Amino acid sequence: MLVLQDVSGEIDAKVFQDVDTLDREFEVGEFVAVQGKGNVFNGRTELIIDRIRRVIPDDGAVGFREEDCVPASPRPVDEMWTELQERIRSVQSEPLRALLSGLVTEWESRLRIWPAARQVHHAYRSGLLEHILKIMEIGSLIAEAYGLRRDMVIAGALLHDIGKLQELSYEVATDYTVEGNLIGHIVIGTTMLREALVHYPEVPPAMAMELEHMILSHHGGKALGSPVTPMTPEAFVLAAADDLDAKMHQIRRHIATDTSGGRFTAYHRYLERVLLKPEDEGT
Amino acid sequence: MLVLQDVSGEIDAKVFQDVDTLDREFEVGEFVAVQGKGNVFNGRTELIIDRIRRVIPDDGAVGFREEDCVPASPRPVDEMWTELQERIRSVQSEPLRALLSGLVTEWESRLRIWPAARQVHHAYRSGLLEHILKIMEIGSLIAEAYGLRRDMVIAGALLHDIGKLQELSYEVATDYTVEGNLIGHIVIGTTMLREALVHYPEVPPAMAMELEHMILSHHGGKALGSPVTPMTPEAFVLAAADDLDAKMHQIRRHIATDTSGGRFTAYHRYLERVLLKPEDEGT
Amino acid sequence: MLVLQDVSGEIDAKVFQDVDTLDREFEVGEFVAVQGKGNVFNGRTELIIDRIRRVIPDDGAVGFREEDCVPASPRPVDEMWTELQERIRSVQSEPLRALLSGLVTEWESRLRIWPAARQVHHAYRSGLLEHILKIMEIGSLIAEAYGLRRDMVIAGALLHDIGKLQELSYEVATDYTVEGNLIGHIVIGTTMLREALVHYPEVPPAMAMELEHMILSHHGGKALGSPVTPMTPEAFVLAAADDLDAKMHQIRRHIATDTSGGRFTAYHRYLERVLLKPEDEGT
Amino acid sequence: MLVLQDVSGEIDAKVFQDVDTLDREFEVGEFVAVQGKGNVFNGRTELIIDRIRRVIPDDGAVGFREEDCVPASPRPVDEMWTELQERIRSVQSEPLRALLSGLVTEWESRLRIWPAARQVHHAYRSGLLEHILKIMEIGSLIAEAYGLRRDMVIAGALLHDIGKLQELSYEVATDYTVEGNLIGHIVIGTTMLREALVHYPEVPPAMAMELEHMILSHHGGKALGSPVTPMTPEAFVLAAADDLDAKMHQIRRHIATDTSGGRFTAYHRYLERVLLKPEDEGT
Amino acid sequence: MLVLQDVSGEIDAKVFQDVDTLDREFEVGEFVAVQGKGNVFNGRTELIIDRIRRVIPDDGAVGFREEDCVPASPRPVDEMWTELQERIRSVQSEPLRALLSGLVTEWESRLRIWPAARQVHHAYRSGLLEHILKIMEIGSLIAEAYGLRRDMVIAGALLHDIGKLQELSYEVATDYTVEGNLIGHIVIGTTMLREALVHYPEVPPAMAMELEHMILSHHGGKALGSPVTPMTPEAFVLAAADDLDAKMHQIRRHIATDTSGGRFTAYHRYLERVLLKPEDEGT
Amino acid sequence: MLVLQDVSGEIDAKVFQDVDTLDREFEVGEFVAVQGKGNVFNGRTELIIDRIRRVIPDDGAVGFREEDCVPASPRPVDEMWTELQERIRSVQSEPLRALLSGLVTEWESRLRIWPAARQVHHAYRSGLLEHILKIMEIGSLIAEAYGLRRDMVIAGALLHDIGKLQELSYEVATDYTVEGNLIGHIVIGTTMLREALVHYPEVPPAMAMELEHMILSHHGGKALGSPVTPMTPEAFVLAAADDLDAKMHQIRRHIATDTSGGRFTAYHRYLERVLLKPEDEGT
Repeated sequence: MLVLQDVSGEIDAKVFQDVDTLDREFEVGEFVAVQGKGNVFNGRTELIIDRIRRVIPDDGAVGFREEDCVPASPRPVDEMWTELQERIRSVQSEPLRALLSGLVTEWESRLRIWPAARQVHHAYRSGLLEHILKIMEIGSLIAEAYGLRRDMVIAGALLHDIGKLQELSYEVATDYTVEGNLIGHIVIGTTMLREALVHYPEVPPAMAMELEHMILSHHGGKALGSPVTPMTPEAFVLAAADDLDAKMHQIRRHIATDTSGGRFTAYHRYLERVLLKPEDEGT
Repeated sequence: MLVLQDVSGEIDAKVFQDVDTLDREFEVGEFVAVQGKGNVFNGRTELIIDRIRRVIPDDGAVGFREEDCVPASPRPVDEMWTELQERIRSVQSEPLRALLSGLVTEWESRLRIWPAARQVHHAYRSGLLEHILKIMEIGSLIAEAYGLRRDMVIAGALLHDIGKLQELSYEVATDYTVEGNLIGHIVIGTTMLREALVHYPEVPPAMAMELEHMILSHHGGKALGSPVTPMTPEAFVLAAADDLDAKMHQIRRHIATDTSGGRFTAYHRYLERVLLKPEDEGT
Repeated sequence: MLVLQDVSGEIDAKVFQDVDTLDREFEVGEFVAVQGKGNVFNGRTELIIDRIRRVIPDDGAVGFREEDCVPASPRPVDEMWTELQERIRSVQSEPLRALLSGLVTEWESRLRIWPAARQVHHAYRSGLLEHILKIMEIGSLIAEAYGLRRDMVIAGALLHDIGKLQELSYEVATDYTVEGNLIGHIVIGTTMLREALVHYPEVPPAMAMELEHMILSHHGGKALGSPVTPMTPEAFVLAAADDLDAKMHQIRRHIATDTSGGRFTAYHRYLERVLLKPEDEGT
Repeated sequence: MLVLQDVSGEIDAKVFQDVDTLDREFEVGEFVAVQGKGNVFNGRTELIIDRIRRVIPDDGAVGFREEDCVPASPRPVDEMWTELQERIRSVQSEPLRALLSGLVTEWESRLRIWPAARQVHHAYRSGLLEHILKIMEIGSLIAEAYGLRRDMVIAGALLHDIGKLQELSYEVATDYTVEGNLIGHIVIGTTMLREALVHYPEVPPAMAMELEHMILSHHGGKALGSPVTPMTPEAFVLAAADDLDAKMHQIRRHIATDTSGGRFTAYHRYLERVLLKPEDEGT
Repeated sequence: MLVLQDVSGEIDAKVFQDVDTLDREFEVGEFVAVQGKGNVFNGRTELIIDRIRRVIPDDGAVGFREEDCVPASPRPVDEMWTELQERIRSVQSEPLRALLSGLVTEWESRLRIWPAARQVHHAYRSGLLEHILKIMEIGSLIAEAYGLRRDMVIAGALLHDIGKLQELSYEVATDYTVEGNLIGHIVIGTTMLREALVHYPEVPPAMAMELEHMILSHHGGKALGSPVTPMTPEAFVLAAADDLDAKMHQIRRHIATDTSGGRFTAYHRYLERVLLKPEDEGT
Repeated sequence: MLVLQDVSGEIDAKVFQDVDTLDREFEVGEFVAVQGKGNVFNGRTELIIDRIRRVIPDDGAVGFREEDCVPASPRPVDEMWTELQERIRSVQSEPLRALLSGLVTEWESRLRIWPAARQVHHAYRSGLLEHILKIMEIGSLIAEAYGLRRDMVIAGALLHDIGKLQELSYEVATDYTVEGNLIGHIVIGTTMLREALVHYPEVPPAMAMELEHMILSHHGGKALGSPVTPMTPEAFVLAAADDLDAKMHQIRRHIATDTSGGRFTAYHRYLERVLLKPEDEGT
């Protein structure tokens, strides 16, 4: 059995003939062209495949576009990238701004497309970038409201999940790397920070240690997987903004994609509740 | 033994002579003029009272000011009141704005001075008003960032703790009322809302129910004392902003009032951590 | 796929022909007459429908009875209603008895037939009434054993779940109303009490507040969804009797309906245990 | 420092002279005659002892009575003993009645005076007997209300804490025995039952096993210290009645002994709440 | 539908013809000879049975061996039995050694073949014996490292799960007995110990009580089902060694039997993690 | 008030005269010579200081020895150091042995004297070394019993708490460093490992990652402060041996230092139990 995926979701697919031949036609994670028919089995729609082959360049001419096949952020990636650059330019501390710019440049190819998770929230192409930007936006506003150091919150937003670039592998499908399982994105992130800091000796040691603390404490507490608890107001705000954006993403997406009848959505397993749908959608 | 309180805190005080006479000189909660001397007992400073009497009008002439005796919000109450009016004027829904204005007018005398709690956070004169305004500020920003209904968040910020005006009694000292213990501010708040709604029939029933839901769910979940969980994005944001402001208040106050040596504060019992103090204060 | 239900349980049913025509023949929640045959699919028996139509008056002549189609309390409703009246007549406080009588009269049509829940316990026609009476019985006995105010326990038994009359909708099938989800039966119940109290001004305010406290605290604690904890002996007894009857109902029903072999029932998911079956049933 | 105890409670007492001599005058747990004066130290009243000696027979002539010195059940022990006998006579199963009678006779001297605990509830002379009787009363009523086997509930009430007769030592003061700590009253109780059963071979093995199950499961669940969960309706009712009586005892005693001002008691550490005091006591 | 089992696992099997006849051919738990063919249904392989009958003596001639049909410990049972005897001979206390020898002799037939559990760990023939020996090995080493009484740890290893010989029934399939459910292996074990002690009066009472304590406390705490917590170093080491061996068994077996691709095993439900597989297996 | 400490424990000390002068006589953490007298205050013995000064070289002549003043491991440090060298020499992997030797040499001055914690267990001079050796001993035995890679367990034992050398400061008194609070010993340890690995490029990357995993997972789970759960058998054994030794240390020390009467120790706050004392000590 195969699992085929495009931007609208996943579908099980079965091949009943020439199985051995087809096996050589494509690899996991490649784009394929498929011919077949639908079938309902155990209450789920599945696809009975007649022909399947990997996509070839000529398919572009008849309408194939990669972006139709991969779930991705609703925001265009170039627009997000520009916003990220602006946020970093707004950092007032010279050495901190240099450090962040350097990191962004070094990791650009991944940062542009990485998902924020394998499941749960922002689990699609460029989801991590979308998530970082929202934390920068929310975090800056809160920092200003309380007179905190905005620079640190911007930096924390960029750094907090940077370890995910090595925790997860992402080629159409998302999975955990060996390092991702054994070390985890929190500690991978601190190592990435330490390696970058070698090239930016102007960053004061106390600031560097606070940045590392923000990465380590951003899950908010030991029970949530952080080896230390936030001990600065900025680390606390980062953890709060991260949690808020992760949950808001689930809430809004669950409402937007709900197909059940009635005024409430189906039960959400992670949020442990049903959600009220806007009135016009209930009509 | 007495407990004397002024803006700087509390002190135990003892009377060893004329106890019976003094007993008639003042009531709990009154302002008093005291003469005596300090003593250290069991490692705490206490006051041995020679003379004590209630404050009289003439004391004003020699420097007595109520505001020196009662812990209060650092923000002037009139400034806060003006901001509250402006926030309510910014509500776009006509009937909702009328409802909120009406409530604020009805409860003005208490809303101006009430503390937000007996302990924990904003536990001082006008603390509730200060807390409401911060949630309005933070909540509006978050609502805009996610394209939510700003009106509902503003309304929720005003309403969420309004039951505290009847849950707590406040005359210099703060305590729980009988209703406060037996019913609790969450349900008292919904009753206050329902009583006000009688006078504002233009508020649509669906909106009224959502407002009630926001009051009920603002602790965020059953384990935290809310009989229902937030089921709208706006109710979720209200609960998050309430939690954030309550904790930020404790964090900033704990750092500001810490007197221990070293780079970290003493352990904070509710936050369950020590906090890093800004570098210049550690010197 | 349809779900058909009668007093013995539920069954999945499928229609493979004339689907569009049949669609107009009946609505969700209506009684239907069905012709078809059984089928085993994925280990479950299902029904393949040949013909299906809504019940018509003439069906009564050939044996159709509503009570065969809807799961209901084993006790006749009229017998229970008489017992409820007697219990209320036994209340000694004049104004309290008047209040309870008034409420019962006002809500009679629902009180007679409402289930106590959508699942878990007493989840059938007139289940709420059966549950209320058992709490009155048990609660009175305990109140007498400890010399408590029996009146208050009787009143609490009637009032504690009265919000369910608006939390749940019930027309053959049971579901949550919008208000049921957003406000919950506990707070709906206090509002119903307050609205009734307007007509019974003789009920002393202190008694009214205690009644409201009993509704609010009847789940026994915050972790269980009550915004306040029982603070009177009578509120404590009410919560204990409610919990006891809910669990006893599950225990007895699980033993009575168990079809597994051996001396023990199948595992009960809510009670988190297997139960010993009486010896003669194990033979 | 000494701790002196009479029926009204405990008091710290200090000796400043002839300490060595006094040391030989009495042992821990003996009745003493004391002469001295009161003193307030650290906010607690203490006793400064001038003379202290063990009670002698002649003291009876001048008013000494043991029962004034030891906290004890408010019910006369003979009255309770008679009620216990009647409850056992009401057991319908011949062999079960014989077993219970035998146990009561065997353990009479301890059963008459033992406390139910070292702290928490019924922690005084004859407290265990008072607790057993209340569970028999409540448990019988509930058993009848649900059509359960009343015999088993009566038996369970007697047996459930019988291990306390060996778990606790009691000579004026209450303490844990070595066996009490290492084995615990639950398992001690099952051993006492097994030893008694040897003399009553007519008790059917299935009944004997259920009795043992009731002792083992009476804390209601593993988290509460029971190695097994109640798996019969009667075991469930026993656990519920035991929990109810233990808590009702704490509630009523806390209200009765509260000395704080206001409408509510002081905070109760085990019940984790304040309690409303009856109106007339608050005046 | 049938479930057929051999040493490699379980398979569902279906009979579509002569169902009634076949029904008389064998009983649950008997060895059978089967003829049929494989089928894939709902993604699982199942067996469509053409002929099935119970094994007859002649089947031995054509290769039938019981040990190919029943999951069993990888260690030969005679080798384990010899090791058990040696471990017991190494006990230095004369009366304790006699007690343990006596118990082993009395229960030999079960001890040789019993599984340690129905699921989770060592859930196969002779699994209990394998588990006991590993605890003896590990426990002895730890006892020596800390200068503890090795005798007690050896004894505890034998006794701790001895109640499982009566808690579980085992005839090819494993299940709970009535006593196993109602009393549980912990308390059954203490009764077995007490019954054996009658024949070994030389065992000092204090030692006997400590042995009973070790059985009762070996789950490590109340939340884990032990009515008492380990209160001697030896009881603590027993509980730690038991927990370690149970988990190590699951870890090693999960890695050894994992069939998923990649460097990590599938998720383990009880251990709540994935496990890293040795490098050469990942190739 | 001062706190004076020697090998037997701590005592409060007070100065009532020449406070200002004395203030200049010594610093926190220095050895002092004291003259004064005992006093009982609030039930605790305290010291009223007449004279106090820092220790001078001449004090050695009259019997001053540093080791009498500082709580320390019962094992001589040189003996432990030799054992550590031998354990490392027993590592079979050439590059791993080189890495461990290098680390031990680099950190020798701290490793010899560091405590394992500020409180709880091994909280004294050379306590960390004592703890490491015990884990090596226990861990090796368990590794052999299960056929695991002994090298990895030896390495894990050395590395798991190596971050404590920077998490804690230790000069007579033990405290947390800034880095210790903000980063924590777990992540500090991985950084120390990574820095050392630069000099040992022969260590295979897969082994290096597993070593880092062992440090990170050694608390056994997220709830216990480890950002990842043990995913190899060796990491699991390390966590188990660490936990066992920490608890065994508390158990044995609590029994050894208990001064309460009776067969049981006083209640142990962290272990949450009383402990049985060996019989001869109870006499």
